[in-house]
Amino acid sequence: MEIRINGIAASDGVGIAPAYLLTKPNLSFEKYHISDVTAEKQRLHNAFDDIVINLKTTKKNLTGKLSDEDLAIFDTHIAILNDPEMIKQVETRITNQRLNAESAFTEVILKAIRTLQAMTGNEYMQERAADFQNIHDQVLAKLEGKELPNLRSLDHPVVVVAHSIGPSDTSQMDARFVKGIITDLGGRTSHAAIMARSLQIPAIVGCNDVTDRVENGQEMIIDGFEGNAIIDPSSVDIEQYQKIANKFMNIREQWQQMIDQPSVTADGHKYKIAANIGSSVDISAAIENGADGVGLFRTEFLYMKSDHLPTEDEQFIAYRRAVEQLNGKRLVVRTLDIGGDKPLRFMPLPKEMNPFLGYRAIRIALDRPAMFRTQLRALLRASEYGKISIMFPMITTLEELQAAKKIYYEEQAKLAVNHPQIGQDIRLGMMIEVPLAALNADRLASEVDFFSIGTNDLIQYCFAADRGNDAVSYLYQPLNPTFLKLIKHIIDAGHTHNTVVAMCGEMAGDRYALPLLIGMGLDVYSMSASSILRTRSMMRKLDRQKCEELYQEAITTCDSMPAVKELVQKWLLEN
Amino acid sequence: MEIRINGIAASDGVGIAPAYLLTKPNLSFEKYHISDVTAEKQRLHNAFDDIVINLKTTKKNLTGKLSDEDLAIFDTHIAILNDPEMIKQVETRITNQRLNAESAFTEVILKAIRTLQAMTGNEYMQERAADFQNIHDQVLAKLEGKELPNLRSLDHPVVVVAHSIGPSDTSQMDARFVKGIITDLGGRTSHAAIMARSLQIPAIVGCNDVTDRVENGQEMIIDGFEGNAIIDPSSVDIEQYQKIANKFMNIREQWQQMIDQPSVTADGHKYKIAANIGSSVDISAAIENGADGVGLFRTEFLYMKSDHLPTEDEQFIAYRRAVEQLNGKRLVVRTLDIGGDKPLRFMPLPKEMNPFLGYRAIRIALDRPAMFRTQLRALLRASEYGKISIMFPMITTLEELQAAKKIYYEEQAKLAVNHPQIGQDIRLGMMIEVPLAALNADRLASEVDFFSIGTNDLIQYCFAADRGNDAVSYLYQPLNPTFLKLIKHIIDAGHTHNTVVAMCGEMAGDRYALPLLIGMGLDVYSMSASSILRTRSMMRKLDRQKCEELYQEAITTCDSMPAVKELVQKWLLEN
Repeated sequence: MEIRINGIAASDGVGIAPAYLLTKPNLSFEKYHISDVTAEKQRLHNAFDDIVINLKTTKKNLTGKLSDEDLAIFDTHIAILNDPEMIKQVETRITNQRLNAESAFTEVILKAIRTLQAMTGNEYMQERAADFQNIHDQVLAKLEGKELPNLRSLDHPVVVVAHSIGPSDTSQMDARFVKGIITDLGGRTSHAAIMARSLQIPAIVGCNDVTDRVENGQEMIIDGFEGNAIIDPSSVDIEQYQKIANKFMNIREQWQQMIDQPSVTADGHKYKIAANIGSSVDISAAIENGADGVGLFRTEFLYMKSDHLPTEDEQFIAYRRAVEQLNGKRLVVRTLDIGGDKPLRFMPLPKEMNPFLGYRAIRIALDRPAMFRTQLRALLRASEYGKISIMFPMITTLEELQAAKKIYYEEQAKLAVNHPQIGQDIRLGMMIEVPLAALNADRLASEVDFFSIGTNDLIQYCFAADRGNDAVSYLYQPLNPTFLKLIKHIIDAGHTHNTVVAMCGEMAGDRYALPLLIGMGLDVYSMSASSILRTRSMMRKLDRQKCEELYQEAITTCDSMPAVKELVQKWLLEN
Repeated sequence: MEIRINGIAASDGVGIAPAYLLTKPNLSFEKYHISDVTAEKQRLHNAFDDIVINLKTTKKNLTGKLSDEDLAIFDTHIAILNDPEMIKQVETRITNQRLNAESAFTEVILKAIRTLQAMTGNEYMQERAADFQNIHDQVLAKLEGKELPNLRSLDHPVVVVAHSIGPSDTSQMDARFVKGIITDLGGRTSHAAIMARSLQIPAIVGCNDVTDRVENGQEMIIDGFEGNAIIDPSSVDIEQYQKIANKFMNIREQWQQMIDQPSVTADGHKYKIAANIGSSVDISAAIENGADGVGLFRTEFLYMKSDHLPTEDEQFIAYRRAVEQLNGKRLVVRTLDIGGDKPLRFMPLPKEMNPFLGYRAIRIALDRPAMFRTQLRALLRASEYGKISIMFPMITTLEELQAAKKIYYEEQAKLAVNHPQIGQDIRLGMMIEVPLAALNADRLASEVDFFSIGTNDLIQYCFAADRGNDAVSYLYQPLNPTFLKLIKHIIDAGHTHNTVVAMCGEMAGDRYALPLLIGMGLDVYSMSASSILRTRSMMRKLDRQKCEELYQEAITTCDSMPAVKELVQKWLLEN
């Protein structure tokens, strides 16, 4: 009997394949006394040996595919299993107390886990605690003859079914085999959703209890367009969805032809569709997807992966390489947006009760400007090798913007002593992601060349709802009519001062938002590289005049986000 | 040599008294081996005994002054010191390892503290860890012959100097002896500032390093009007500030005469000045200070102090008593605003990364409506005994407001079966504290009888700055011109629909905000009871027409909060 499941459509496409449950099997066990000590020790060692061999093989297979840092985790796990002190403690319990291997091992490893967990302020120790927990699961599963799910071992197509999906899971996903993703938790901006879109895997999130409703190996259809899934589908369903999947493949191929086409509406209005990227490695994906430039170059990767403050030269090289790769297209660089949920190894920041409302981004830059100045100098120097724009994150007040600009001009003046033209081509801008800045857009626009609306944060602050918190994910409402009016206010304010208005949140790549944003007059649409061609293809069919009318209709007749969505869906079918 | 210190003016008044440092002395010690085991054990026991006697005396002195719950903490501390197992462990270390008492005791108690701290999800255990830490300090101080600061032992006037001040400190403060408060940390909405205003103790917060700059017993002047302090003041200074203090005492006496006066401007416009209260006990303070009603009755006290969900009858009795005490004046009750930083004992909520952006207030009420329905029924029943208004906290979208109203009307209809008139006099309203609601005020106003602007939260979300986080306290900017325009927008939207607009954040009691708020047309000003007479006295001297001009001047000529503040200060001197 087929079961239908509804969730939040998170990544386009249709996937049909057997379910692969990414949930831990029940690893509970009985504590009992054994009679044969030698045999029990042998059971323990066999389990350890099997796991170590397995870890070594996996590591070998992944060498070259993962970074050295990611590979090192295998050595850590092997070292835990080879630790003689640990082995001795477990063996002592088996010998002296005649405990079964499960109990003896659990007692020893839980002690280690608790000690590590007790160091609550130490992130490194917390990660080690997670390593021990992982080893604990592996050993218990091996002793009990159970299989732990392991994405790396996949060799056939599956739909991954999980409670939630974290970065460690997605790093193991191979798009050749993962045909769909469906999760209990998550919203459209959750990690699972963003990664699925970037890997172009159809996905549905926020299904509440799908992990309880499907069993390993059951056939599944994932409809990532509408957020519907079917467990044990009928052959009629499979045939119908296979058609949709095929049609979508054709559409994807048509999108490919958009690579060299201009980003223009049917009635000839020109825009830019740019890519959001997280490191220089992503630039090739941006180019392969026909980006008109990079609309958001996050620079945190330079800092977060480093164990020291990146020097001016290290940064200069990274920025220069990035802008040269773009070959004449514009690179919009966001200055350091650390703090909040992004810690730095070499600069401990205070633990905060509400990091998203805390000491982060430009607030740190203005408070401890040395690091900020270094970054600005590196960017100024790199601007001699291509078109660079600089934007400041988390600007709240006019004074902050003016203070940031003052520092920038000071660094420019210093460098201009030897390079008189330096920075002359740089455009200066700011993110609009704090409600107060959005409200004050008119005054701020007179101070910058461009705005970039960061909708993920702006929505989270306007709705007072953490976008990582599932309990309030219903408040992620980019199409809420009140929020749309705020976006329009920002765009109009920018245009009054000839300030270019860009958007670099998830909303910019949302197919329902696109006609509304064109109707509002947004200039630059910056999104995941994987969304660019779809967006361009859609834009080229839209008529700006009609989009303006759609926007007007939305804000005059709709009271809620569902009403706006319904209006746009209907409009898209008719246009 | 006198030292001048600047901070944030947090509570009006002038205090002159010797400094009393609320900082822990250095309790570090050497680990060494002792020769006389018996003598060392005796040292330990003497210390324990002295502390136990001290605790018992303090408890006795405070019986009747503190709640039973607060008194129980003394028994907990005594029980820790009398624990035979703990004493045995310490003695064993003294006897077997010949450790000095400090080292032996520290080893044992730290083990206990770490075990408790490791239970990170368990708030009760974290509180117990704090108890053990406190005992540790007391024993070390006693062994080393040092004094720990103890506010309860005060018997002469002092200025309290502290790094920061928490609820446990303020509960021990006796306004007869504490003549001023000055802290390193904190902003105008920090706990220290709010408590100081409520206790009418002059206070300065956010002075960075005052604890390093003053020594115990040094004479100090605290100027809570301007945020200035002087250490070791000259006799000229003392004389001058004594005059200000005397003048302020006279002014306070004049304010007393405002108790029965109407809240009206010099040109005859009438308003309401109401009190914010946290429990029924505070109602008498509201009445003594001439409140025109209660503008914010927080109901969390009913839930947070209870170990079970308060029943409908328990709540009914509390609300009825409160509204009867008000004797015809209006009681505005905010429905349960739990979650965020306010946990409940009987309802564990998930730990959140950003609780202020999380699952709280109306979000919980709509998700688990049983508790909400009980509260509404209790309020409906109490409304037969006086004027009750009900307001919903943290409303973000129109749908939430409509859902909350629907539940209210369902409960009203059920009760109306036996009480046909029930709830007919209730006014329904909502807090405006989420930016999206502020932006959508026009649509929301058509749905409610009144708005109450919660400026503390609204500022925190508009500026994306946690009001409890010192690192971003500079972004608490009620007088920011962009924020003022948002307030004006809310007021105008309300008035278009005949919706009364109230304010119940700290801003409503701010003397620089008052003329601006009158100029914007705010109807109800709800504040700490201690601010009511001052505000009424000021209001009666102001002219609404001139206030309107001031507001216009502020938003047209000022770019920043300091500019607005300067304008208002100058205007107040001239008007």
